[in-house]
Amino acid sequence: MTHTLVPSDLIEGAPVCALTGEKLGAIERLMLDKSTGTVAYAVLRCGGFLGVGEHHYPVPWPKLKYNQMRRAFDLDMTADQLRGGPSELDGEAFDWGDRSPPYRHPQYWTV
Amino acid sequence: MTHTLVPSDLIEGAPVCALTGEKLGAIERLMLDKSTGTVAYAVLRCGGFLGVGEHHYPVPWPKLKYNQMRRAFDLDMTADQLRGGPSELDGEAFDWGDRSPPYRHPQYWTV
Repeated sequence: MTHTLVPSDLIEGAPVCALTGEKLGAIERLMLDKSTGTVAYAVLRCGGFLGVGEHHYPVPWPKLKYNQMRRAFDLDMTADQLRGGPSELDGEAFDWGDRSPPYRHPQYWTV
Repeated sequence: MTHTLVPSDLIEGAPVCALTGEKLGAIERLMLDKSTGTVAYAVLRCGGFLGVGEHHYPVPWPKLKYNQMRRAFDLDMTADQLRGGPSELDGEAFDWGDRSPPYRHPQYWTV
């Protein structure tokens, strides 16, 4: 039986690939709007080694599609597009809740 | 700076109390609608001992309000109302994605 529902803890940690199949990273967590209960964006964790030097990218939920064959989310963005958007390197002061700054990819912050 | 966003992994594991302050359990996970990215409901884990004999209850997201003082979610339901609704005991075959059965608390399954 297939459903339209998915558990949050199954999404966290799921691998994310570009449409080419290249692995980009993994979903670290989802950021939810408290009042509406809607996913504002997913945080994608990329690179690093043993948890050091990782980059964290906000990715709009509609850009992520689960690919049953790969058992991973497909992200309709290239690695370059991802790097061109907002990100946080470990330890940086990045305000994850602040969606006011104008980014090159404004859709990052749209619910 | 206060925001309207909250990370999914901070919600998972958060304690849940009745309005009286009585601890009811903890949020186990969120069930999300894949297409809309909306929380369909939260799963509340109650009772049990060392992970055995726990009950799992679907709870509508709008019924949960974070209480800063208690550092817990307030649930506007009594323990009796919770037990009167749908639940799963460990190991039971409960179809978490199936929102078709008529329950005594139909709002459980409303997004």
